[in-house]
Amino acid sequence: MVIVHVFIKIKPDMIEPFKAATLKNAQNSVKEPGILRFDFIQQEDDPLSFLLVEVYKDSNAVAQHKETSHYAEWRQSAGHMIAEPRKSIKYVNIFPEDKEW
Amino acid sequence: MVIVHVFIKIKPDMIEPFKAATLKNAQNSVKEPGILRFDFIQQEDDPLSFLLVEVYKDSNAVAQHKETSHYAEWRQSAGHMIAEPRKSIKYVNIFPEDKEW
Repeated sequence: MVIVHVFIKIKPDMIEPFKAATLKNAQNSVKEPGILRFDFIQQEDDPLSFLLVEVYKDSNAVAQHKETSHYAEWRQSAGHMIAEPRKSIKYVNIFPEDKEW
Repeated sequence: MVIVHVFIKIKPDMIEPFKAATLKNAQNSVKEPGILRFDFIQQEDDPLSFLLVEVYKDSNAVAQHKETSHYAEWRQSAGHMIAEPRKSIKYVNIFPEDKEW
């Protein structure tokens, strides 16, 4: 299993278009067989800061996600809304176990 | 719904006891009716850094969690293993919707 948290800071005035573009990507991503979760959440005290909680079955599923048309479309549509380079942190699950995701 | 990410940095040599104490707390916490998720994950490139992904039905559930015996036991047992003050970030969910957690 691969857990990736992707921290995204967007430009002011881009909240609604960014939410729309990323919601669409998240809705399509969870349909991929290798994706267990694709949560899209917004920081309560800083509405320009977002987090994607991406949980993949394995590293192959990560590679497959990057080849999907919805990921390409998201990069195209959301790319110019992002204020600074995305930061990612990888995690290993302790609880719950793999089969519970 | 209330989403809280709790970032915890522990002291060297405390990895295994911290994992054991926190696993026990997580296993008990997910049994609380107000808790939807209580993921316990470890940063891949920094094994002294952990994250609790806590998802509550509402702020009342947050208060109730803090009154449980397993939370009190965890604070007691894990407290001296923690290297620096815990940092928390609150999030609002965009996807999935409340009923999907």
